[in-house]
Amino acid sequence: MKRLMGMIVLVAMVALVGAHRAGAADTRQEVHFPSLPGSVTIVCDLHMHTVFSDGNVWPTVRVDEAWREGIDAIALTDHIEYQPHKADLPTQHNRPADIAADTARVHDVLLVRGAEITRSTPPGHFNAIFLEDVDPLETDDFYDVFAAAAEQGAFVFWNHPGWQGRERGQWGEQQTNLFARKQLHGIEVCNGNSYYEDAHGWAVERKMTLIGTSDIHDPSIHTDWTAEDHRTLTLVFAEERTLDSVREALFAGRTAVWQQNKLLGYEGLLAEYFPRCIQVFPVHYRHDQHAWFKIANLCPLDLKLERTGEVGPKTLDLPALATSLIHVTVTADQLAAGLNYRVTNFITAPKQSLEVTLTVEDHTPKTPAKNAESK
Amino acid sequence: MKRLMGMIVLVAMVALVGAHRAGAADTRQEVHFPSLPGSVTIVCDLHMHTVFSDGNVWPTVRVDEAWREGIDAIALTDHIEYQPHKADLPTQHNRPADIAADTARVHDVLLVRGAEITRSTPPGHFNAIFLEDVDPLETDDFYDVFAAAAEQGAFVFWNHPGWQGRERGQWGEQQTNLFARKQLHGIEVCNGNSYYEDAHGWAVERKMTLIGTSDIHDPSIHTDWTAEDHRTLTLVFAEERTLDSVREALFAGRTAVWQQNKLLGYEGLLAEYFPRCIQVFPVHYRHDQHAWFKIANLCPLDLKLERTGEVGPKTLDLPALATSLIHVTVTADQLAAGLNYRVTNFITAPKQSLEVTLTVEDHTPKTPAKNAESK
Amino acid sequence: MKRLMGMIVLVAMVALVGAHRAGAADTRQEVHFPSLPGSVTIVCDLHMHTVFSDGNVWPTVRVDEAWREGIDAIALTDHIEYQPHKADLPTQHNRPADIAADTARVHDVLLVRGAEITRSTPPGHFNAIFLEDVDPLETDDFYDVFAAAAEQGAFVFWNHPGWQGRERGQWGEQQTNLFARKQLHGIEVCNGNSYYEDAHGWAVERKMTLIGTSDIHDPSIHTDWTAEDHRTLTLVFAEERTLDSVREALFAGRTAVWQQNKLLGYEGLLAEYFPRCIQVFPVHYRHDQHAWFKIANLCPLDLKLERTGEVGPKTLDLPALATSLIHVTVTADQLAAGLNYRVTNFITAPKQSLEVTLTVEDHTPKTPAKNAESK
Amino acid sequence: MKRLMGMIVLVAMVALVGAHRAGAADTRQEVHFPSLPGSVTIVCDLHMHTVFSDGNVWPTVRVDEAWREGIDAIALTDHIEYQPHKADLPTQHNRPADIAADTARVHDVLLVRGAEITRSTPPGHFNAIFLEDVDPLETDDFYDVFAAAAEQGAFVFWNHPGWQGRERGQWGEQQTNLFARKQLHGIEVCNGNSYYEDAHGWAVERKMTLIGTSDIHDPSIHTDWTAEDHRTLTLVFAEERTLDSVREALFAGRTAVWQQNKLLGYEGLLAEYFPRCIQVFPVHYRHDQHAWFKIANLCPLDLKLERTGEVGPKTLDLPALATSLIHVTVTADQLAAGLNYRVTNFITAPKQSLEVTLTVEDHTPKTPAKNAESK
Repeated sequence: MKRLMGMIVLVAMVALVGAHRAGAADTRQEVHFPSLPGSVTIVCDLHMHTVFSDGNVWPTVRVDEAWREGIDAIALTDHIEYQPHKADLPTQHNRPADIAADTARVHDVLLVRGAEITRSTPPGHFNAIFLEDVDPLETDDFYDVFAAAAEQGAFVFWNHPGWQGRERGQWGEQQTNLFARKQLHGIEVCNGNSYYEDAHGWAVERKMTLIGTSDIHDPSIHTDWTAEDHRTLTLVFAEERTLDSVREALFAGRTAVWQQNKLLGYEGLLAEYFPRCIQVFPVHYRHDQHAWFKIANLCPLDLKLERTGEVGPKTLDLPALATSLIHVTVTADQLAAGLNYRVTNFITAPKQSLEVTLTVEDHTPKTPAKNAESK
Repeated sequence: MKRLMGMIVLVAMVALVGAHRAGAADTRQEVHFPSLPGSVTIVCDLHMHTVFSDGNVWPTVRVDEAWREGIDAIALTDHIEYQPHKADLPTQHNRPADIAADTARVHDVLLVRGAEITRSTPPGHFNAIFLEDVDPLETDDFYDVFAAAAEQGAFVFWNHPGWQGRERGQWGEQQTNLFARKQLHGIEVCNGNSYYEDAHGWAVERKMTLIGTSDIHDPSIHTDWTAEDHRTLTLVFAEERTLDSVREALFAGRTAVWQQNKLLGYEGLLAEYFPRCIQVFPVHYRHDQHAWFKIANLCPLDLKLERTGEVGPKTLDLPALATSLIHVTVTADQLAAGLNYRVTNFITAPKQSLEVTLTVEDHTPKTPAKNAESK
Repeated sequence: MKRLMGMIVLVAMVALVGAHRAGAADTRQEVHFPSLPGSVTIVCDLHMHTVFSDGNVWPTVRVDEAWREGIDAIALTDHIEYQPHKADLPTQHNRPADIAADTARVHDVLLVRGAEITRSTPPGHFNAIFLEDVDPLETDDFYDVFAAAAEQGAFVFWNHPGWQGRERGQWGEQQTNLFARKQLHGIEVCNGNSYYEDAHGWAVERKMTLIGTSDIHDPSIHTDWTAEDHRTLTLVFAEERTLDSVREALFAGRTAVWQQNKLLGYEGLLAEYFPRCIQVFPVHYRHDQHAWFKIANLCPLDLKLERTGEVGPKTLDLPALATSLIHVTVTADQLAAGLNYRVTNFITAPKQSLEVTLTVEDHTPKTPAKNAESK
Repeated sequence: MKRLMGMIVLVAMVALVGAHRAGAADTRQEVHFPSLPGSVTIVCDLHMHTVFSDGNVWPTVRVDEAWREGIDAIALTDHIEYQPHKADLPTQHNRPADIAADTARVHDVLLVRGAEITRSTPPGHFNAIFLEDVDPLETDDFYDVFAAAAEQGAFVFWNHPGWQGRERGQWGEQQTNLFARKQLHGIEVCNGNSYYEDAHGWAVERKMTLIGTSDIHDPSIHTDWTAEDHRTLTLVFAEERTLDSVREALFAGRTAVWQQNKLLGYEGLLAEYFPRCIQVFPVHYRHDQHAWFKIANLCPLDLKLERTGEVGPKTLDLPALATSLIHVTVTADQLAAGLNYRVTNFITAPKQSLEVTLTVEDHTPKTPAKNAESK
């Protein structure tokens, strides 16, 4: 009821004051990531700030941005302990999500209540998301905070683990304890444009959930989904487009991280996902051992492949959301055996990337043997 | 055999001379027009020139451009009678298509042999396409030309009918005769950025095929598919992606013309096509009589709708290939009855546009009646 | 001293918390408007909001945006009476400018302390800028507010005068009184994408200062200076790039308003300004009565000219910040007399635009007279 | 006279046939390279092809492209010996420049008659430009060709010297002989996106003119002057904008090569040029040892600087045609001594780049000494 009242008051205010304002943009550019069979790809940004800690926007702005940029789910994660605007804006940990709630409903953006647990390094910062109430997390003892989060069923991940120098950005005693207590579930292997290779290794070793976030404080001014000009995001392979389903998939580790022009994920998942990201067309023209076929890249990364086998072009650069013409000099038999490549920007572990075999159909007439032709 | 030789010679030349040249761009941006059930949408440009008449590019360039711009089929239609480069480049009507043939096979672009019959106005210019041999069309008598085209089963359309002033751009005796003899099948209602409204009327009246073309002479420098920055094209709704199928659909009149930010087509076809061009999502949030839902525009036009009914926003502007948030103030019953609009840029006849009803599902809980609430 | 302390605290905070954040963009795209002799063109946005009234950004964001977008001077003008965030963020009228001050110094953006006097219509809303202290303007009596502003030497303008329907958007008794008392100096003839033609007339009639503003509430996501994609701004022709000089020029009425692809200003000023906006090159090639010359458009508007005289192209479209090739069919004598045009997007008064004469030098050899040649 | 007739015929043809064609784009985007004192920077592309050898466009297209892309001077350099279109288009070495002449006059593009001497490697290919007649260069003996070019006062440079493998791409006997005879004046250190580091060394050693060209065969589809999306070009620092002056500057070696995001030139010239490429503003804000100032980058390269001295940011990235905010932590005395950097993309010799000292004025009030403050 309170919420509806808020809604009505909002409408009234607009009538009195806001009507001369140009409407906020109501257009959304979708992020075109394919889905896996039986799941839907939820584009998530699970770490961001508002004026309620050290961010620079009102909470509703985060929803507007997500809508515009094709993001499906966001978590508002203002710092609990770090409140630089406090003198002007008194601390209220639950207000960001409360304020943004109606805007999220209107824009059909999934809104997650979260908080950033902000301790000096070590142990560093952690996000607890899917909270019902942030206030119980404001407590002195480090482990009490995580117990409070666990009580609410929160999903917890370690933020920017490489931050503040290598001597500090280490898996430490606290991480070990939290992980043992099942109160630490994921690691931000990518935060903004930083990639933490060591942390990626720690995550893979323990099968923790891989997370990538924007950690945005300022307004988002991304306007295009080119390789570089997008936020770092987490793709969550959920059963359906609901908060419960996103939460379930996060605990199950079904994620991939999209940073700049690369995707990081567990090998099994990326191996299953890559064939969904491209469409290989049958050979449309063959002349002796020269064959031409097309590959459509269905995702917003420029895919970068390097040959690991004997045949095929040495490299394949497949621009995002476009079709590439491929010329190979192979026999039909060689082609039938498949072309072996490494997808250098599908990262499965530190310094490791996905190996794939491209299967290309060839229904063009077989070139007759030379002596047959000479008759 | 001659062709294969040409191919081999080409490869050899590249080895000797061309290897330091950067490869022509091998990436294609698809044009994202949806298909109709049981058909595939073939993006065609059926009128263009090369250095073999008054154009400024070598024939292969037209294939490279088509590939790059997401065009599926092109017709090379150099002027038969107008040969301004003749002193340097002796007339050879069949060479453009012969020269471009291998490049078309390599790029999987459907290549149509055509010619522009170039007489002073009246009667004006005509394109004959799907020719096997252009030479028989170089003859003095006007009607003989069309008889020669008919003998080869050509599809023939009247070019830029409004050209050279209104007194000349008229349906005349020759058009009447050709149409009666079934030797004139279509009209270019759009040529480049010109729209010929009168000619659109003449076409609709006689159920002739609607054609739109670029009539390009210079290199194409389009790099993006925004509303304004694309060639004028014909969408052909063919059974399959083959030359025979495109030809069949042209004779059957199953086309639409895409010029700037509008689509011109027969009412029956556009009525069937429009629902394929958008996806209307169910209401995702309702609060009293306020309801919010999304419409995804699946085609590269910014769709412009004006309300013709009682309810719904007065106008709906749906940007190309994006999702729009729609806010309506209606009861569930009103919504169930559908929202009536005119799609002002789906043109069905001169000064007429398509009327549609948007059906929006609403599975949100019904708002209880007021007196129920007051209890 | 207090300010320096704030600075030091800020630096310290960054060291503790913010160092993992990517730096806010430190690149500025200048807005390329030419200057008038003896003055410098100051690009100003004099009406905008922050979280301290109904805006959605922290005050420093307005400085970051101005820097990035090439704006030289901004006024923060939060509503005095309208404080929808008050429950979370207690009213403090002077805090926006105080908070933004250091960021403005660092970015060399001229920061103006202002406030929006927010009364129901009539009389509507007004901005008072160049205030030293906003608090004295929070008073009940309408005229007392303006007296308090006047006491501080504020420049005052009427905001979005057409807002809330024609019956209300009228010059009324209050405007008459304030103007008579010299407490109302300008009118927002453009606010966002709205143009108030009636108000433009009222301003011209009384020689009031013409103002155009963004009235921005949300974050600015402009990334390019094309005709449509920029904020509505006021160009101030000041003696130097200082706050005092901007203030002096505003009182003197030396402004022009840049909205979408048009510039509004007093006729005398625009007549003086237009020749600074283009560079007409001498004829570089002449052949009989055909002459070719270039015009460089030095400003970020696409200039639109219509011929008012006898000779020259019927229209001249000169794209922003580009060079256009002009072909004229005139004798040297006709050219020497100048080409007469109306600049349809240099608006001097409601429905009136600037008339200009283009002078083109021609040093090409004179074509001999015909009978001389026939000898 | 013949030329004028051609012009008149052209006009007549347009009246009969071409009037329905949309005019070729008549807008030019200037390339904003600053000038040196006493000279004007001429943007040149001195190597390109048309349908008259193995290019794919009519000669006039090269002028249209140059105009549109802000290029001042072009040389048409079709292969003499390599004529793959010969069967359709009989060899005529002088026709490309003859055909393009009127279009060049109309667009005020400086047109240079040239030819590519096309011998197998070694010795490879060479361009002779500023020819009056290409025909005398079609002769069997290798040295006779260059003698014929020299007789016409041609400027001659060695093309893509690294082409066809390192074993062939070597300075050889022929180069030595031609250079001794003063019949070889420059080297293409950059051709398209290839950079020939060895050849750069050979050129520097002998003080030969540095040349960079597009060697374009297909139509140019560049539409923007970003770092990567432009042709490789030669900047010629000429006394005036005439062919004679360009020729004089080429013989004098006053050039720089613009490839991707780097500029190659002789150290003396780049040292003189760099200060023209930026504008360093005085410190606008100082707080203790923190000082802020602006640098405007006036050229279309993103300038990349690395610190070689003790003070200043470790790197300075100055985006093209934009203003950057620079923050330094230095005393006023340190600043007065200048900031030492290497401009890593101003290349003076193989693996060498320009060293510069940035001088920054500081008129802000001196911070009082600490003990003064403590009083």
